[in-house]
Amino acid sequence: MLVVMQANATEEQVRAVCERIESFGLRAHPIPGAVRTAIGITGNKDAVDLGTLESLAGVAECIPVSKPYKLVGREMKPEDTVITIPTPAGDVKVGGVHVAVIAGPCAVETREQTFAAAERVRAAGARLLRGGAYKPRTSPYSFQGLGLDGLKILAEARETYGVGIVTEAVDNDSLDLVEEYADVIQIGARNMQNFSLLKRAGRARKPVLLKRGMSATLDELLMAAEYILSEGNYQVMLCERGVRTFSDHTRNTLDLSVVPAAQRASHLPILVDPSHGTGRRQKVRALSRAAVAVGADGLIIEVHHDPDRALSDGMQSIAPEEFQLLMTEVKEIARVLDRTVN
Amino acid sequence: MLVVMQANATEEQVRAVCERIESFGLRAHPIPGAVRTAIGITGNKDAVDLGTLESLAGVAECIPVSKPYKLVGREMKPEDTVITIPTPAGDVKVGGVHVAVIAGPCAVETREQTFAAAERVRAAGARLLRGGAYKPRTSPYSFQGLGLDGLKILAEARETYGVGIVTEAVDNDSLDLVEEYADVIQIGARNMQNFSLLKRAGRARKPVLLKRGMSATLDELLMAAEYILSEGNYQVMLCERGVRTFSDHTRNTLDLSVVPAAQRASHLPILVDPSHGTGRRQKVRALSRAAVAVGADGLIIEVHHDPDRALSDGMQSIAPEEFQLLMTEVKEIARVLDRTVN
Amino acid sequence: MLVVMQANATEEQVRAVCERIESFGLRAHPIPGAVRTAIGITGNKDAVDLGTLESLAGVAECIPVSKPYKLVGREMKPEDTVITIPTPAGDVKVGGVHVAVIAGPCAVETREQTFAAAERVRAAGARLLRGGAYKPRTSPYSFQGLGLDGLKILAEARETYGVGIVTEAVDNDSLDLVEEYADVIQIGARNMQNFSLLKRAGRARKPVLLKRGMSATLDELLMAAEYILSEGNYQVMLCERGVRTFSDHTRNTLDLSVVPAAQRASHLPILVDPSHGTGRRQKVRALSRAAVAVGADGLIIEVHHDPDRALSDGMQSIAPEEFQLLMTEVKEIARVLDRTVN
Amino acid sequence: MLVVMQANATEEQVRAVCERIESFGLRAHPIPGAVRTAIGITGNKDAVDLGTLESLAGVAECIPVSKPYKLVGREMKPEDTVITIPTPAGDVKVGGVHVAVIAGPCAVETREQTFAAAERVRAAGARLLRGGAYKPRTSPYSFQGLGLDGLKILAEARETYGVGIVTEAVDNDSLDLVEEYADVIQIGARNMQNFSLLKRAGRARKPVLLKRGMSATLDELLMAAEYILSEGNYQVMLCERGVRTFSDHTRNTLDLSVVPAAQRASHLPILVDPSHGTGRRQKVRALSRAAVAVGADGLIIEVHHDPDRALSDGMQSIAPEEFQLLMTEVKEIARVLDRTVN
Repeated sequence: MLVVMQANATEEQVRAVCERIESFGLRAHPIPGAVRTAIGITGNKDAVDLGTLESLAGVAECIPVSKPYKLVGREMKPEDTVITIPTPAGDVKVGGVHVAVIAGPCAVETREQTFAAAERVRAAGARLLRGGAYKPRTSPYSFQGLGLDGLKILAEARETYGVGIVTEAVDNDSLDLVEEYADVIQIGARNMQNFSLLKRAGRARKPVLLKRGMSATLDELLMAAEYILSEGNYQVMLCERGVRTFSDHTRNTLDLSVVPAAQRASHLPILVDPSHGTGRRQKVRALSRAAVAVGADGLIIEVHHDPDRALSDGMQSIAPEEFQLLMTEVKEIARVLDRTVN
Repeated sequence: MLVVMQANATEEQVRAVCERIESFGLRAHPIPGAVRTAIGITGNKDAVDLGTLESLAGVAECIPVSKPYKLVGREMKPEDTVITIPTPAGDVKVGGVHVAVIAGPCAVETREQTFAAAERVRAAGARLLRGGAYKPRTSPYSFQGLGLDGLKILAEARETYGVGIVTEAVDNDSLDLVEEYADVIQIGARNMQNFSLLKRAGRARKPVLLKRGMSATLDELLMAAEYILSEGNYQVMLCERGVRTFSDHTRNTLDLSVVPAAQRASHLPILVDPSHGTGRRQKVRALSRAAVAVGADGLIIEVHHDPDRALSDGMQSIAPEEFQLLMTEVKEIARVLDRTVN
Repeated sequence: MLVVMQANATEEQVRAVCERIESFGLRAHPIPGAVRTAIGITGNKDAVDLGTLESLAGVAECIPVSKPYKLVGREMKPEDTVITIPTPAGDVKVGGVHVAVIAGPCAVETREQTFAAAERVRAAGARLLRGGAYKPRTSPYSFQGLGLDGLKILAEARETYGVGIVTEAVDNDSLDLVEEYADVIQIGARNMQNFSLLKRAGRARKPVLLKRGMSATLDELLMAAEYILSEGNYQVMLCERGVRTFSDHTRNTLDLSVVPAAQRASHLPILVDPSHGTGRRQKVRALSRAAVAVGADGLIIEVHHDPDRALSDGMQSIAPEEFQLLMTEVKEIARVLDRTVN
Repeated sequence: MLVVMQANATEEQVRAVCERIESFGLRAHPIPGAVRTAIGITGNKDAVDLGTLESLAGVAECIPVSKPYKLVGREMKPEDTVITIPTPAGDVKVGGVHVAVIAGPCAVETREQTFAAAERVRAAGARLLRGGAYKPRTSPYSFQGLGLDGLKILAEARETYGVGIVTEAVDNDSLDLVEEYADVIQIGARNMQNFSLLKRAGRARKPVLLKRGMSATLDELLMAAEYILSEGNYQVMLCERGVRTFSDHTRNTLDLSVVPAAQRASHLPILVDPSHGTGRRQKVRALSRAAVAVGADGLIIEVHHDPDRALSDGMQSIAPEEFQLLMTEVKEIARVLDRTVN
């Protein structure tokens, strides 16, 4: 924290701010300047809300300095975290040189539909299957998912096609079941700051895929991950899925620059979801290429064997043929970055 | 839903789109124009994801037309909903001509601090006390609230000062307790789309204060309220608390125009939280005046008896003296609109 | 500027940063902390781009500290600037205790329409007439204004109804003419960073009304005003007109909290435009009340004698009857703040 | 335009809306639905502001349907526009299969610095040199460019290194000179809606590079291009350079999904500026790869031979060695898309 004094602040006011800082058990370091004085603060600042200094006489503003996260930071662990996901057909790695592709339908609708998608995405080379059994929907009148029945269908597809299962938990009850049936527990964008759910995920023994909230900053995403790590689960993958802006040609604005930014700040892998990130199927392939080119550690893609008849998010699901082309292209691009897909 | 065809779409393509629409059990209404054809759709559209029409040959775009909410809408119930909150000192009403003021500390820290705040806000004329026992915090290392002990302190303050209690629930367990101890159940901005929690709130028998998410549109806020009403709880108050934008002179951008917009679309009362809405104590009084002037049905304000030493959000809490001035001003402004405060 | 070093930065790296700073002719002030070192910088920083320090080894980030504006700042001139606008019916003041109302049609369409509006807004108590002779329009195919003929109509209305004229200039040529015919030169939101035009306005001898750009921060608005003052014209009024956000229930999101923020940072008056700020006529009156309640130094409102037939922005223009009600309400609210309208 | 009536609108109200529409010389097409009626409108809508229909009795909302641009649209010209830029070393093409790279310093500072940059970017394979002679700067106290002297330095570099010159014009006077000395006239983001300047650019006989405004939608960008085309200059290249959002890990949020969106809507080529788009030199190479992978028709990159000592935007300029690596990578990625760089 740095306290910047007003240009006309008196020495007495500077002294009063320093005393207040020291009354919190911290150290104050005044830096007199040509125009104004700034005061640096050191010590353990977690316990106090230093923002209140801003209301003292003569103070112009307070500027936070150190980053609030610990366990997720590169400073704590400089080397990349590589997550290992065991599947019936062997381990899948995410992070480091490994780029993982997760693909499948938005929602598990029927056994047939799920199996059709699983077969096609596996044939195209993906080794992780996505599919929602619990669907957070804006409207209470929309299809909310098959629940436990959906999880059972996914578990069956796992054995039949040898794919790892990635699926979303929306509350503590569903998380218990997802932990039992799936390989990766997904926390959706709307729940990124559902701290109760994050803590529960931190006590799970399966990797977690944590999606960035619609208007979350990178720091907030990292702090949400910190909740999970601080409970003992270090296997967290971040996921960019588009943020909300004024821009109206896509449903969300995919913020690909967050990939190198997250990789600089944190050792955790970061994936990209171009399906939600654009909300438009015509853009999914182009943005998938871009995501791998920018350095993402993986992709999560909605693939439906008959997207025009999907029960949810059909607009952003691609057909298996398109997914096949996508896989070919992203493998070539990964090679330019000396990385391998799956 | 309206389907707009491309300028060069053939009659056959128009027919194919109409057939697809009718295959869903809906009716298609082609409107030939000078440059292009548009196709209106009627019937029960809830069951199908019409966005997939966008991928048919010759289609330029699909435009949603009717609003997705039902129970919260003015069309369903034209007159204003007035919520009644029973307190030891008589009922408090919110909505219609009644402007309610909820005030108190961000967090319940101690019995003394809570009582000091309760006494002062009651003396200034507020009849509803806020105070967090469960605090959703960005960092796992920040003060998370006193939990049940906090609720008990609030319940005691209720009896001592005759105030109604408004406090936040963050998951199903805390909601059970909040419903037991408090008068109004608050759902915070970060949980606005925690649909599991919304459904639980819909089964509660106490009024709910639902805060707008940081990047929620008005439609999404209304749909979140619809979740609560659809479970049988019709006592919902909306609350604007600032949205996230590029604008950096305040912590959030308070969107006061949502007040008349919500009142036009819905019969539910809408309050304003200028404390979170600005994040700066120097602006709370000015924005409180503006909120009442724009027509808000109430305010929720952070007041701390010693704001510079608050454990959370001290920067945005005002002192009791400032709150007293605020009450005087908003009462005068309410009178200009023929409304009464509390 | 404050340079924050990484936690593991070596002493050598700290020294290298200090040397680089001093090579720019500035002074470096290292502040060693428990976890990391920060380095304060003093001296004249205008000449160098200190951001490049961020790329030196061991540097975590660079944080700007002092504000870049000078002439527009409160530190330079603590008391409020009050602008005086001479009209045929006497001076109109803006700022301090004076709240000014500028009203009239979006565009000057005909002499009759302009006079009809001028008569009605004058009768309702406004003393400044707005009306565009040069219209910046998104489409090249939309009505672009009457140009010089429009200015002449406004000048005639000035003499006939005793009102001061506020109208927009869109380039240097139109600014020459606006300076000749009108009383206040308006710079529109789209031109807020048209620095060539700002400099020309700085050499004009008439007051300037400078609108905030659609995505301008407060600092950028103040720097744009600084361009005008730095050329010698100190008579500048700022104007909030809504910013661009994801929020879709209004055309723009009116950011009323910028009013107290601007007044804290700068001595210049700040007005509010609720017509563009909402883009919806049903909200203009409510937001006008809110603007005066928050402390704005004036309003600029679109009034058309027959808004349903306006050539531009009819959706946001109000009728004279509505404007009359608006004036009554804002006068009462201004009184609560010990201010007078016009 | 589609007018949606309220659920309870009477037949009389529907008829009144139709009559109003027809009074404008347009045709009304009522579509009765199960719940409500919608009314389609056809005919030449440019002359009237149909938004005013929204205020008629019984109207719920008005939804614009057809796109406002003509000359820039794919419907007008289905095949890609390929721009040819003549340079002393032969033509450079942009669009179609051709990906162009424009590189060079933010500002022309000295002859030596410009030549050093020109030599290095040419050696790395770029054939178009950027460099600002006129710099739009937020602060009036920042370096504003060398003006005509800068243009002359660029023209000399053109002959010495055989590169085409791309440089910004900020007003009509500078545009006259840029047209004379340079090969491509750049219009910056802050001037995207400086319609006076756009019209002047439309009368120039050199290609124009038009940057997207900080908060411009795709439609607004296309309409700005339409201004240029409507004056007779069809050689326009669009350029994404990041938009303004809440996201704070980069200076702007690079919106790469606008590339496929623009290419779907328009035949004009679209480039990407990852230097301004991120504002951080560490991210430029990664985002350049992503831009080419998403399908951009070119890149514009800030390269400075000694970026830590640049007079402007040093934070986002990369060194020649980094640029060399960038060129190698983007060429390999372009090959995956069957395209060639320069």
